Amino acid sequence: MFDVKNFQIIRNNKIFEGFIIAVIIVSAMLVGVKTYEMSTLLLQTIYVLDIAITAIFIIEISIRFVAEERKVNFFKDPWNVFDTLVVTISLIPIDNSDMALVARLVRVFRVMRMVSIIPELRVLLNSLIIALPRLGYVMALMFIIFYIYAAIGSLFFEKINASLWGDIAVAMLTLFRVMTFEDWTDVMYETMEVYGWSWAYYVSFIFLTAFAFLNMVIGIVVNVLEEEHQKELEGDPDHVSLHDIREELRELKLMISKQ
Amino acid sequence: MFDVKNFQIIRNNKIFEGFIIAVIIVSAMLVGVKTYEMSTLLLQTIYVLDIAITAIFIIEISIRFVAEERKVNFFKDPWNVFDTLVVTISLIPIDNSDMALVARLVRVFRVMRMVSIIPELRVLLNSLIIALPRLGYVMALMFIIFYIYAAIGSLFFEKINASLWGDIAVAMLTLFRVMTFEDWTDVMYETMEVYGWSWAYYVSFIFLTAFAFLNMVIGIVVNVLEEEHQKELEGDPDHVSLHDIREELRELKLMISKQ
Amino acid sequence: MFDVKNFQIIRNNKIFEGFIIAVIIVSAMLVGVKTYEMSTLLLQTIYVLDIAITAIFIIEISIRFVAEERKVNFFKDPWNVFDTLVVTISLIPIDNSDMALVARLVRVFRVMRMVSIIPELRVLLNSLIIALPRLGYVMALMFIIFYIYAAIGSLFFEKINASLWGDIAVAMLTLFRVMTFEDWTDVMYETMEVYGWSWAYYVSFIFLTAFAFLNMVIGIVVNVLEEEHQKELEGDPDHVSLHDIREELRELKLMISKQ
Amino acid sequence: MFDVKNFQIIRNNKIFEGFIIAVIIVSAMLVGVKTYEMSTLLLQTIYVLDIAITAIFIIEISIRFVAEERKVNFFKDPWNVFDTLVVTISLIPIDNSDMALVARLVRVFRVMRMVSIIPELRVLLNSLIIALPRLGYVMALMFIIFYIYAAIGSLFFEKINASLWGDIAVAMLTLFRVMTFEDWTDVMYETMEVYGWSWAYYVSFIFLTAFAFLNMVIGIVVNVLEEEHQKELEGDPDHVSLHDIREELRELKLMISKQ
Repeated sequence: MFDVKNFQIIRNNKIFEGFIIAVIIVSAMLVGVKTYEMSTLLLQTIYVLDIAITAIFIIEISIRFVAEERKVNFFKDPWNVFDTLVVTISLIPIDNSDMALVARLVRVFRVMRMVSIIPELRVLLNSLIIALPRLGYVMALMFIIFYIYAAIGSLFFEKINASLWGDIAVAMLTLFRVMTFEDWTDVMYETMEVYGWSWAYYVSFIFLTAFAFLNMVIGIVVNVLEEEHQKELEGDPDHVSLHDIREELRELKLMISKQ
Repeated sequence: MFDVKNFQIIRNNKIFEGFIIAVIIVSAMLVGVKTYEMSTLLLQTIYVLDIAITAIFIIEISIRFVAEERKVNFFKDPWNVFDTLVVTISLIPIDNSDMALVARLVRVFRVMRMVSIIPELRVLLNSLIIALPRLGYVMALMFIIFYIYAAIGSLFFEKINASLWGDIAVAMLTLFRVMTFEDWTDVMYETMEVYGWSWAYYVSFIFLTAFAFLNMVIGIVVNVLEEEHQKELEGDPDHVSLHDIREELRELKLMISKQ
Repeated sequence: MFDVKNFQIIRNNKIFEGFIIAVIIVSAMLVGVKTYEMSTLLLQTIYVLDIAITAIFIIEISIRFVAEERKVNFFKDPWNVFDTLVVTISLIPIDNSDMALVARLVRVFRVMRMVSIIPELRVLLNSLIIALPRLGYVMALMFIIFYIYAAIGSLFFEKINASLWGDIAVAMLTLFRVMTFEDWTDVMYETMEVYGWSWAYYVSFIFLTAFAFLNMVIGIVVNVLEEEHQKELEGDPDHVSLHDIREELRELKLMISKQ
Repeated sequence: MFDVKNFQIIRNNKIFEGFIIAVIIVSAMLVGVKTYEMSTLLLQTIYVLDIAITAIFIIEISIRFVAEERKVNFFKDPWNVFDTLVVTISLIPIDNSDMALVARLVRVFRVMRMVSIIPELRVLLNSLIIALPRLGYVMALMFIIFYIYAAIGSLFFEKINASLWGDIAVAMLTLFRVMTFEDWTDVMYETMEVYGWSWAYYVSFIFLTAFAFLNMVIGIVVNVLEEEHQKELEGDPDHVSLHDIREELRELKLMISKQ
């Protein structure tokens, strides 16, 4: 009875999966409900529910762990590690200690289990994460642009407004704000009173980052289109390429020349 | 004389269609005119016009209904259901009761009949609606991102500004505002006074949603390009594929080998 | 000597063209200089220069007109009509009458002659204008969305802030502002105090217009890519299509079967 | 021993390159650290480090210069010129003279050496710079649009708010602000009080620039996609075109007809 196969049957059971998704949704809703003011009765209900959810999650992960034939493989999947961590830390009791905040935060991250349990969302997030390094060099270039502008901004504008240009970190945050066009003219008009030429600083920065960003987007589009094209070709076993046609033609020539 | 065929002739008549479009335009203009202050005379004219428009719409829909050979099919088209609903609710008289507001609102929605009557607009809106589920999983992922950030924001920032972070619904609205870059630094600077690290919360949120949005857009572009390509191939009966070429080559080989 | 051919030689002369472009640039710079405060001496210089420029433009257009073999064709080109209009209205003297403003405005529009004289810019602007009707139905749909939302906004929010929602025209301007994300939360928070649900009005409007706009952009991209592809095929006289290959194969078959 | 070959070995050595990158990173970090308030001890450490970095850079560039076989080629690469300039100007001592600011600025630009030393970043920046002239005519058209609107704005709105519309340069900056949607309604509402029609000025400007910008972006996308396609074809020595197939077919025909 205590066989790995039996646990695999439970793990792959559609009803079991549906039940876990339902529990995750309830857990997510609890996170939302807790942000409202509640009566004592409701608070107690939530407290009981929370214990029940944690218990169910522990049982679920145990089943998934036991169902794995080679135990090492279980922790090779980062999603399993994430699930185990989130559930384990949930065991910390919510009292008024410093750890209470961590315990509440972990309950928020349980919402992320939605991504780990629904394969389509997992694939989507993976594809987003895979796309990130592709942007590596453009991100590096943008960081250099930010860094240089922040250093110049801090050098010249620090005396004008220290809360915006006090040091290089604050200046980079200010430049991020300028990049999102958020009240950037307020920042500009302030420095233009002292340095009349400073409009050139802002306008050139906006052009540079917008242009680099554009380049980044186009880079991804081109990459994605190519990958789609590649996948299409590979996915079709019946695909005929011009190479195949040439091969057929060469065979034909051989046949004719042999006649 | 009271034949379905006759009604079909009226329904498909170009002059009839043009007349109905003209009536819809007048109805739309009335909606606009009503937002201005008006003399009593004008108000009375509008009142009369409104009754006339409602009457014409009832006659038009009756004709379209009678012209339908199988009456059940009429209500299978959601646009017909929409038209019938809008026209039926228009029959509620505008007096000073609570229903008056509903009656006025329905008159606004009569402008939508423009979409239902012009085939090109109907096709366009349908294509927009069809595109929505395609985005399903990205939307779900974005909702999860919003939900988690809203829960964290509500947990930490509620004491700082309850009107922005009071509960999870308000926090999500605030995050939507941050996503549109609308005075997001005001929100940030406020929380940074208490939690110095909170810039990371906003910047990471902006990156995540911008990146997910970008992914969504590219997904649609790729899909649309593929569909266009597919349509092009299918629409051309004279299209020659590499498969066809290979078939021709194989026939040739057979001919030569038989010689 | 007073031959059409001679005028055509002048018109097509590279030095003549370069001289006219230089005069247009000087004319554009005068427009800019006039916005600064000037000494009386400079004002008089500009006055003289202005007369000279007008004179040169009249001579230039006369040459272009005389050089045209069939005079009717001259006015078939909308750019010629534009040039003639702008130069003719320049003849109105700048005094302190009401016409002075028109005269100054026309001098501003003389900058547009840059577009009419440089073929690449003319082609670019033409391509922009040609692209507009292609967007016709999406623009119509967006207008309907704006109109309906403006009517609803005016119906409910007029009492809250008449300067934003007073009538349908003002409401549409407010909605345009919301679409550009410009202080849209100020508009929203104001109405949310009376109607708590009104966030749904703004959020749904932003989604609808953003989605329609996206669709519009993708529509243009697809169109442009297709046109480029088409142009490429047509522009290459040496292009080999799969049709051509099939034709060759059929000829081959005929040759073999005849042997 | 003092052979060009030896210097080339040093220049191409991976450890040498890694060391220089590390020195550049330290130099970049110093730029950042300097924006914070520091103790005298730290200031002195930085002073010493700065001298060391300058010395290392001089040695590095000397090695690269000596390693070049034809000395003229060294200055043909703009990155070498940039490196030499930045390092040479670093030699100016930082004291309280006017040159101190220049010296500090040059230290900021040493961060740019990161781009000159990492080939991938250099290629990326080059590709960005190469893309710029491609946009030449669209940029020219946008400048003309800006210029005309600025002239009109300055003509009408100067009396309303001289700090926004005082002269053509300030008006262009204001229009740039409007293009980024940054508090553009504040600018608009101010002028609408005097000229009720001025909303048309802003809305038309936003449409024109957004449309021109869109066109620009699409232009780049199409260009990049075409180049990628071209590169793909050229990079594949095994590529079979329809031309090749036709050639093969013609040879076949010749073979058959000769039989």
